[in-house]
Amino acid sequence: MVRVIVLGSAAGGGLPQWNCACHRCRAARAGDLSENGQMSLAVSADEGVNWFVINASPDLRQQVIGSSALSPRPDRLRDSPIAGVILTNAEVDAIAGLLSLREGAAFSILAHPKVLSTLAQNSIFDVLDRVRIPRIAVTLDQACFPLLPDGAPSGLRLDAFDVPGKVALYLEGAAGSATASGDTIGLNLTDLRSGARVCIIAGCAEITPALEARIAGADLLFFDGTLWSDDEMIRAGLGQKTGKRMGHLSMSGPDGVIARLAHLKIGRRVFVHINNSNPVHDPASAERQQVEAAGWSVPAPNMEFTT
Amino acid sequence: MVRVIVLGSAAGGGLPQWNCACHRCRAARAGDLSENGQMSLAVSADEGVNWFVINASPDLRQQVIGSSALSPRPDRLRDSPIAGVILTNAEVDAIAGLLSLREGAAFSILAHPKVLSTLAQNSIFDVLDRVRIPRIAVTLDQACFPLLPDGAPSGLRLDAFDVPGKVALYLEGAAGSATASGDTIGLNLTDLRSGARVCIIAGCAEITPALEARIAGADLLFFDGTLWSDDEMIRAGLGQKTGKRMGHLSMSGPDGVIARLAHLKIGRRVFVHINNSNPVHDPASAERQQVEAAGWSVPAPNMEFTT
Repeated sequence: MVRVIVLGSAAGGGLPQWNCACHRCRAARAGDLSENGQMSLAVSADEGVNWFVINASPDLRQQVIGSSALSPRPDRLRDSPIAGVILTNAEVDAIAGLLSLREGAAFSILAHPKVLSTLAQNSIFDVLDRVRIPRIAVTLDQACFPLLPDGAPSGLRLDAFDVPGKVALYLEGAAGSATASGDTIGLNLTDLRSGARVCIIAGCAEITPALEARIAGADLLFFDGTLWSDDEMIRAGLGQKTGKRMGHLSMSGPDGVIARLAHLKIGRRVFVHINNSNPVHDPASAERQQVEAAGWSVPAPNMEFTT
Repeated sequence: MVRVIVLGSAAGGGLPQWNCACHRCRAARAGDLSENGQMSLAVSADEGVNWFVINASPDLRQQVIGSSALSPRPDRLRDSPIAGVILTNAEVDAIAGLLSLREGAAFSILAHPKVLSTLAQNSIFDVLDRVRIPRIAVTLDQACFPLLPDGAPSGLRLDAFDVPGKVALYLEGAAGSATASGDTIGLNLTDLRSGARVCIIAGCAEITPALEARIAGADLLFFDGTLWSDDEMIRAGLGQKTGKRMGHLSMSGPDGVIARLAHLKIGRRVFVHINNSNPVHDPASAERQQVEAAGWSVPAPNMEFTT
């Protein structure tokens, strides 16, 4: 059995975003819509004794405090059930929360060498001691078996694979926003005992046949739900970029995620990394009803999925 | 008139700290003690129209959301009354929150050249566009007059000065933990209309005659309250370092802050940057009563001071 807790399901900025007064952010500030932190998941294959965090959101300190499953275990003065953090990209909303996991605990960081290189080039992450908190390079297309801090097996198999995406915004330089291998990865996490498989794709710019093959047959899928429609940021007056320019597909439309994944056999489909411009945040919206009618979930913080 | 909102008054890690099960952190998790984020202050000299944030705590997104004074102003789609961020050092608990102020707003970052150099060396901070968010070097011992994003005066005069301290933990390399100019600065913020002066010293390893001269006569003092006693981390089993090694004086004792500043003329004295190991977090503690009897305040989040 795999347990997955959604610590947050919003995209960068969260809901509300600090400087946004769109009607959803205003509603969240007023308490009329649930607040939602930036996307982080926690995954356990040993019934909640140890957890792997997927992406370290800037809100991670509050998310950990708000999840009783991630509290220190009884009779220990300093402790955490967080055994590791797995990063799918180097965007601020995926890595800044590492800075909230300082203070001497032992866990591992697993990421593509490109993301580890970004961490290494930013000395602020040296606050995480590399002896106690080893940084482990994940090789694409090759199974690995994450360990617990004491060296014991976690019960999980991790298969990482490339996903069409783009480099982190702050690293867009000479390379521009072109896709390159390792900038954005997807994860298949398999429970070694039951064989149950969770597929996590937090950012995706294009659905290719290779990607479909990675997803097909998953018991539980978490997929990039940044935008409802490609131009919604522009139409709402919130930005100048299309979803395509940001490296994110839309949920709706003939080329959208819902349509493009409809033919695949998947146990349960869950959208995460949902931008504050996306109407599905509002449970009363027509778009939310469409999403749910198509068999997708839009999770609130602390919602748990089991497979 | 100067208004100061305490967005958070805890030291690095906050209360509760993610991996701490000391009795105060357990009480905060259980709701028996107030949660408290890492230290950030907001200062306004124009009756709350514009604010300068002092130190960008890792909890800044939640702190901004939790303070109605810092919400977007009416009739604007994207907006913030935050006109600038002033940094007193480069520790994670003072700068990580800058990463939560991305998303296109215009404000300025004011800091010592050493801290700006650390930001420049860490590309993750490039997520803050340097045209819209200029980085302004603060010269010690020289008055400066922070401007609003539109170039208008803020009504504040800033005088920055060296404080005995130490370099940020993650920058401790060849230099070790030795003090060097610019690693930790203090701030005098003066309301140009009324002359009221707020003195902010978020970290301090030693009280010198030069420092006393900077503090004397302040109408409102915010001072480093990390520890109650120098060896409290060791005695509680929470760490191996003394306060002196961490670059922080203690509140208590003949060489403590309370005793050493008692002879100075100061309008109001407030402790901030209070570690979760410090018993004064608990309003029922004997130490809290001693602190208050000595004329010091221990502020809860969102407490406001006016002078």
